[in-house]
Amino acid sequence: MAAHSPLSAVLVEEAGFDAAWASGFELSALYGLADTSLVSMSDHWAMVRAMRFRCALPIVADIDTGFGNALNVIHAVESYEQAGANAIVIEDKLFPKVTSLLPGGRQELVREEEFQGKIEAAIHARSSPELLVIARTEALIAGLGQEEAIRRARSYVDAGADMVLVHSKQHTPTEIETFLTAWDCATPIAIVPTSYPQLDEARIAEIGKIGMVIYGNHAIRASVKAMRDAFRAIAAAGGAAGVVDTIASVEDIFALQEMDRITAHERRFLR
Amino acid sequence: MAAHSPLSAVLVEEAGFDAAWASGFELSALYGLADTSLVSMSDHWAMVRAMRFRCALPIVADIDTGFGNALNVIHAVESYEQAGANAIVIEDKLFPKVTSLLPGGRQELVREEEFQGKIEAAIHARSSPELLVIARTEALIAGLGQEEAIRRARSYVDAGADMVLVHSKQHTPTEIETFLTAWDCATPIAIVPTSYPQLDEARIAEIGKIGMVIYGNHAIRASVKAMRDAFRAIAAAGGAAGVVDTIASVEDIFALQEMDRITAHERRFLR
Amino acid sequence: MAAHSPLSAVLVEEAGFDAAWASGFELSALYGLADTSLVSMSDHWAMVRAMRFRCALPIVADIDTGFGNALNVIHAVESYEQAGANAIVIEDKLFPKVTSLLPGGRQELVREEEFQGKIEAAIHARSSPELLVIARTEALIAGLGQEEAIRRARSYVDAGADMVLVHSKQHTPTEIETFLTAWDCATPIAIVPTSYPQLDEARIAEIGKIGMVIYGNHAIRASVKAMRDAFRAIAAAGGAAGVVDTIASVEDIFALQEMDRITAHERRFLR
Amino acid sequence: MAAHSPLSAVLVEEAGFDAAWASGFELSALYGLADTSLVSMSDHWAMVRAMRFRCALPIVADIDTGFGNALNVIHAVESYEQAGANAIVIEDKLFPKVTSLLPGGRQELVREEEFQGKIEAAIHARSSPELLVIARTEALIAGLGQEEAIRRARSYVDAGADMVLVHSKQHTPTEIETFLTAWDCATPIAIVPTSYPQLDEARIAEIGKIGMVIYGNHAIRASVKAMRDAFRAIAAAGGAAGVVDTIASVEDIFALQEMDRITAHERRFLR
Repeated sequence: MAAHSPLSAVLVEEAGFDAAWASGFELSALYGLADTSLVSMSDHWAMVRAMRFRCALPIVADIDTGFGNALNVIHAVESYEQAGANAIVIEDKLFPKVTSLLPGGRQELVREEEFQGKIEAAIHARSSPELLVIARTEALIAGLGQEEAIRRARSYVDAGADMVLVHSKQHTPTEIETFLTAWDCATPIAIVPTSYPQLDEARIAEIGKIGMVIYGNHAIRASVKAMRDAFRAIAAAGGAAGVVDTIASVEDIFALQEMDRITAHERRFLR
Repeated sequence: MAAHSPLSAVLVEEAGFDAAWASGFELSALYGLADTSLVSMSDHWAMVRAMRFRCALPIVADIDTGFGNALNVIHAVESYEQAGANAIVIEDKLFPKVTSLLPGGRQELVREEEFQGKIEAAIHARSSPELLVIARTEALIAGLGQEEAIRRARSYVDAGADMVLVHSKQHTPTEIETFLTAWDCATPIAIVPTSYPQLDEARIAEIGKIGMVIYGNHAIRASVKAMRDAFRAIAAAGGAAGVVDTIASVEDIFALQEMDRITAHERRFLR
Repeated sequence: MAAHSPLSAVLVEEAGFDAAWASGFELSALYGLADTSLVSMSDHWAMVRAMRFRCALPIVADIDTGFGNALNVIHAVESYEQAGANAIVIEDKLFPKVTSLLPGGRQELVREEEFQGKIEAAIHARSSPELLVIARTEALIAGLGQEEAIRRARSYVDAGADMVLVHSKQHTPTEIETFLTAWDCATPIAIVPTSYPQLDEARIAEIGKIGMVIYGNHAIRASVKAMRDAFRAIAAAGGAAGVVDTIASVEDIFALQEMDRITAHERRFLR
Repeated sequence: MAAHSPLSAVLVEEAGFDAAWASGFELSALYGLADTSLVSMSDHWAMVRAMRFRCALPIVADIDTGFGNALNVIHAVESYEQAGANAIVIEDKLFPKVTSLLPGGRQELVREEEFQGKIEAAIHARSSPELLVIARTEALIAGLGQEEAIRRARSYVDAGADMVLVHSKQHTPTEIETFLTAWDCATPIAIVPTSYPQLDEARIAEIGKIGMVIYGNHAIRASVKAMRDAFRAIAAAGGAAGVVDTIASVEDIFALQEMDRITAHERRFLR
């Protein structure tokens, strides 16, 4: 499940998901910026580090294109491994990228061999094979068709990818199901069913071949709706009395901040 | 209205509030940390700077105790003025502080003269009188009574404060109304009616003397409730189909990220 | 004169230079990293902001390629202007870049029209014409010859550049002098005489046409030599007694930290 | 040996020292700020993290007072351990502190029991006993005498400190030698012979009992002298020709940036 802050990562853990998705899209949105390679590696890295500090789940870091070429990928992999990330996802878009779901968005891919070089660089750079390197192809997003998607996915596996993420922005699962039917490697596929949410986990289990499902942006979308509603209600009423039962209590926030632990530490260590 | 990110500041602006409150409590919560002086000035400063980058409203920076003594206050005022803050609020708690609304929380104040020194330092440090210096007394929060609250508020005005924030955690407005009745200086009072939301803006206008009302933590509380609900629903259903109509759309997020501006820039400047 | 920290910027000011050059090469070196677009905009921006906080000189920010395409340039210009930079220099290399002086280094340029788009984007993005936009061509560095250098420089002026930086890594000034002889626009030229230091300011004044001379990396090079010498001497002697007269005194550092100002503030504001 | 950047840490390693001292004084100076608790934990932490990224030596993190009370110490220890620090040093000054060597500087200590609480908090917070917790007493700096210094040092050992740093600003080693003669615990002592450099490692070996010698600020002092000299020479000559042989070469900087590794990666992974 997507997260854009340690707080959202803690809530992901609380809800019982298997891992937190350190989403570039969500972090860009948190800064009020477009998801077009404006948020730097430093800022995304810092958020992943802060998530690691508070969240025990595996963290899958969305590092976009790797912030440049294969040399930037090496720097990123070494950096995210130091931060305690458990997996990185790199995509075969050209840097600087444009977010995948934008209607009519410029979607240019790097050459297949260039991206193989980036995957090999990532594999080379990790100090432990426990850091998963997940290659993401935007071939379907870019409208290049199934054949290109399959060819790229295979060549990314050849280059050493531990998993391949195949993204689609169709409003039905047909495109991704067609891909999966044709997929005959042992390497599992990751999907991001944002635009085709009808493909649920029951159906995913039937299909097989899928190793990871990413809910890519629901944390920030939920937050925006809730802040917007609460702000409008408070502005309209000229006061917050009407919203207090519709939002988390102050005590809820204290619990997420581990105030109990703080209080126990105060008693034990303050003299 | 409270904000903890540029995104929430943009939503504050959209909802028509007069200013954004760069809340220390909310930012601590975003990091999953207690509001006990763990989040550093650098991190809070960076968030204020990023808010300024995206939000045209006045920003009122909650700088807690000023991050130490009068020298830290000087450093903070110079720094926040550089970041484009329009007001700073410093409180008369001892550093490191404990958040005000915690039941049974340690609430120690600095001596009145020491805090006067901090206010004078803040006034001295600003390069323009347009940066408001707001002194916050926690005398009522600390259980020191009305007389102490009035005396401290007056002496903070004497030291140069442009406004005095008087905090109360009573569940009715009686305590704050009693204070306001006794308050006979021309300097306006700021309040944070989190625990007594029944004191709405209509009533506030009747009372007079109040120059600022801060909705202190409703942005993060709204976000937490919404993420929690969405995460649980997705986890329970094994898919996101059921929540997409209850959260903001991807297009809503694009609008908040100013994707239109990006697209226009692409057409104009990419060659 | 190059700077990589507020401290070095303060020393630049003390020595009487007209401006500080917030060098990407020096900051990369400070991090122990290659100057190949590994240090992010955030980190470079933060250093410029911190320099602004302590140094009254104009700051010329070396923003490399603009950290990506024209959209990244817009983001950078808006950000650096907020930080208080007085000029930005963008170069016509392909992102991610390789540092200019590396023998045999990959030196690929973007197309001329693409770079014109970046300059126009920078001009569009600044809120005040007082932020100088300086276009840097690496045509000579890339071995493309005088004709290409002149054509690019002119077309960057046409796109709105306030000045053009022409870089050369020849060990004599001949290449740059040839360029200057042929340069017939009113727009001044900036140079970086690192590899041809014999071209001094007296000669530069004779030639004319040069609006800015950048000493690009001498701050970090001086620091490295001095630390290396001091460290070796201390390690060899098993003690620091022999080096104390060859390095700045503790009192010198206090003065650069403005300890007098701190002490005065303590007396005035601590109670 | 002191370091204030990854670059200086790399030079510390090159010179053969056993560890790098991530000095708060040096980092404050790098920012042009007084060493009076103005540089935040975030900024110091970030520098330690960046040093860890480039330097294989043990890193001893100078965390001043722990940035507040025992709760801040817990947060700091958890944070620095995540960053890969190998030891932390906390001192018994009151937060915000004043740097130790300032003549006439305010030197107030926290109560002994309070500092014991901070040490116990640090021990509790580390996840591995391999992170050394070093307690620093400023009793001699504060003029409280040998008896107080010994009593505090003993009580810090009782609280669990792995080593005790005893600071002195006398210009001869007598004060520290008197302390060492009286010291009868097995726990080793750390010293910072900045003001008494005549106490060299040969003499230290004779005395025994000393587990760590910290050269506390020589990196920044060497840098300042060298930049000042180079800047003045360039300004006076109107050119850099005269200084190039007195500073590190560009090739030296390339080597410290590991350009060979970058070039090898380019050949292998760029396609």
